[in-house]
Amino acid sequence: MLNVVSLNEAVGIARTRMPAPSLAAEELPLDAAAGRTLSEDIVSGENVPAFARSTMDGFAVRAADTFGATAALPSMLRVAGEIKMGEETSLSIVPGECAAIPTGGMLPKGADAVIPVEYTETQGDLCLCCAAVSPLRNVTRAGDDVARGQVVLKAGTRLTPASVGVLAAMGRGTVPVFRRPKIGILSTGNEIIAIEKKPLPGQIRDVNSHLLLSLCAVYGCEGTAYGVAPDEKNALLAALREAAAENDAVLLSGGSSAGKADLTAEAIDELGEVYCHGIAVKPGKPTVLGQVCGKAVFGLPGHPAACWFMAELLIKEYVHRLLRDETAPVPVKASLTEHVSSNHGREELLCVRLDGAAAVPVYGKSGVISQLAAADGYIVIPRDCEGLRAGEPVDVYLF
Amino acid sequence: MLNVVSLNEAVGIARTRMPAPSLAAEELPLDAAAGRTLSEDIVSGENVPAFARSTMDGFAVRAADTFGATAALPSMLRVAGEIKMGEETSLSIVPGECAAIPTGGMLPKGADAVIPVEYTETQGDLCLCCAAVSPLRNVTRAGDDVARGQVVLKAGTRLTPASVGVLAAMGRGTVPVFRRPKIGILSTGNEIIAIEKKPLPGQIRDVNSHLLLSLCAVYGCEGTAYGVAPDEKNALLAALREAAAENDAVLLSGGSSAGKADLTAEAIDELGEVYCHGIAVKPGKPTVLGQVCGKAVFGLPGHPAACWFMAELLIKEYVHRLLRDETAPVPVKASLTEHVSSNHGREELLCVRLDGAAAVPVYGKSGVISQLAAADGYIVIPRDCEGLRAGEPVDVYLF
Repeated sequence: MLNVVSLNEAVGIARTRMPAPSLAAEELPLDAAAGRTLSEDIVSGENVPAFARSTMDGFAVRAADTFGATAALPSMLRVAGEIKMGEETSLSIVPGECAAIPTGGMLPKGADAVIPVEYTETQGDLCLCCAAVSPLRNVTRAGDDVARGQVVLKAGTRLTPASVGVLAAMGRGTVPVFRRPKIGILSTGNEIIAIEKKPLPGQIRDVNSHLLLSLCAVYGCEGTAYGVAPDEKNALLAALREAAAENDAVLLSGGSSAGKADLTAEAIDELGEVYCHGIAVKPGKPTVLGQVCGKAVFGLPGHPAACWFMAELLIKEYVHRLLRDETAPVPVKASLTEHVSSNHGREELLCVRLDGAAAVPVYGKSGVISQLAAADGYIVIPRDCEGLRAGEPVDVYLF
Repeated sequence: MLNVVSLNEAVGIARTRMPAPSLAAEELPLDAAAGRTLSEDIVSGENVPAFARSTMDGFAVRAADTFGATAALPSMLRVAGEIKMGEETSLSIVPGECAAIPTGGMLPKGADAVIPVEYTETQGDLCLCCAAVSPLRNVTRAGDDVARGQVVLKAGTRLTPASVGVLAAMGRGTVPVFRRPKIGILSTGNEIIAIEKKPLPGQIRDVNSHLLLSLCAVYGCEGTAYGVAPDEKNALLAALREAAAENDAVLLSGGSSAGKADLTAEAIDELGEVYCHGIAVKPGKPTVLGQVCGKAVFGLPGHPAACWFMAELLIKEYVHRLLRDETAPVPVKASLTEHVSSNHGREELLCVRLDGAAAVPVYGKSGVISQLAAADGYIVIPRDCEGLRAGEPVDVYLF
């Protein structure tokens, strides 16, 4: 039953083979939608801005009327009127005319540019233009921000403040988003105790339930903790069935030794199917992927740092798939400050701190999670490589 | 009253001169604390792990007993017993003895290393060690993760999933965090309408209220929108007084032209003090910083992209100060893909997309916010510089 895969193969399983429900959509008020993911393409029903606007305080002109104008030889234009901020104008200018206009004011018919006030001088109802402006100078055209019919934000976009701003500009008071994926979180192991308890020798606090709950929130999911199941197959089967019935996917953690992963794999096999049992990566080896009762199951390592990495690399990818989010991680380039050695035969994930363009390794034992809190991101050391040299360029994946 | 400062001076004003209340603390359940900021240093009351543990399945040994052992000439040790996972052991080994131990099992007294099972062979109650191990090999010592008395996380730390994991490992079921800063958000301008309305020519939707509400949430604040005040001093004074009375700080936006910023500055001056009126940066020039009724006030540009940048550079800095968060933005190094030109005399903020180690400029007019949604971060072009060349190294501040 042991079926060890590479990290890339495991990512492929999460992307294509694990069961993935299609999520229903819900319509949310815009102010409640930040952090959620669009369930539909958003197409603009209108031009933004709706009309050509001035970007300066000055005079709306026909650019051709200013050609050749200088301080010594200004163009002389008749001021046909004044545009008011926030008001529609019925003003129309003809050759030889201009209109006073504030920043943001609507360009009058006939005008195609704005000359800033500091290049003009007024004498009665005359305006002297002391510089030439080219057509469209100091003007935002209708639809410059968003044109009617344009797909502005695609389904699968996770809404940032900037995209909330874009939706507000389009007049979307509510937006369609996917419901949050529901994730059941289950710890296993006789030695695992609630975090508030003082561990007796041999006992370990249930760090992973809390770690995974907050990772689920970061990934845009609704996590539910199901407590700790003992190392006993029937109890584990019952807990797995319950969590699978009530969620879109289940995260199991706590099994850190070879024997533990075996029990997890056996239970998954009995209720569904094991896709892989073991990943050739450090940390993260004792990871099991499969399905129970038609729901995706991630059997994660018990060591919190290993659990964190497998969540970041596999569960995040799976959640992106559910939410149709095509965002790929953008690594940043840096160079290593020191040699790092690595094991042959499996990839290694190493925490680093960024110092300008330098990546400084942050070491920790795999059970230790504090190095994650002290790092900015991680690098991947390829398998079949004895390590990386000081000065070598690396891709840093930021947290 | 016009008092234009550089961007650095404006950041300095936000950091030191604007009024900053000291925020009360509250004790939250750990699972509700992610994204919040610690109000106290967290000192460990215990060692994590509490006892020395094995990191492998194998045999706990006295390292000295294995020195010189090889497959051809194994050390022969008596198996004194078996350590069970999750149980305290009273076992103690003497020279010439070892004990079977699982991953995560408690190291027995007398042992100082673990030899992995694959380097051993058992014959009855004898264990043949086919390799030497050095002291502490395959062992996590008590306190390796966190030592008793150590400051594990400092006041001002914003809690990520990894730091939630660290707190869980320390048995913190609840944690002390600062209450969320309360921020009042007020738009101004006769031309500004609610986003659900169809703008008549000359009208503009109130993008900034929604943009700032979601930025406040990202910064860990509780934002409250106070609607749109007209361009009329008494109405603006009344709205400012109300927002200042009910919040820790007030964000005003909507004044985009010179005249608007003047009205904002006048109103602030009447109720308190103007610290600066204008910043030599593009976009973001018509920004006013001050205080009203003893509360910090940010008069932000009306153009959403400019508003976004000033929030990111000034308000975030101010909120960090309230929350004692000393995190500085870590720019990543990249090289520009094309020449960019810039104005003399003021700094310029330019959106870029990252493509590997290449920074690709993303242009947009200052009223346009969609370029923010399409970019990964921004660069700062220094003042008194005519621009940057293709290939030039730049610091990219990621969103």
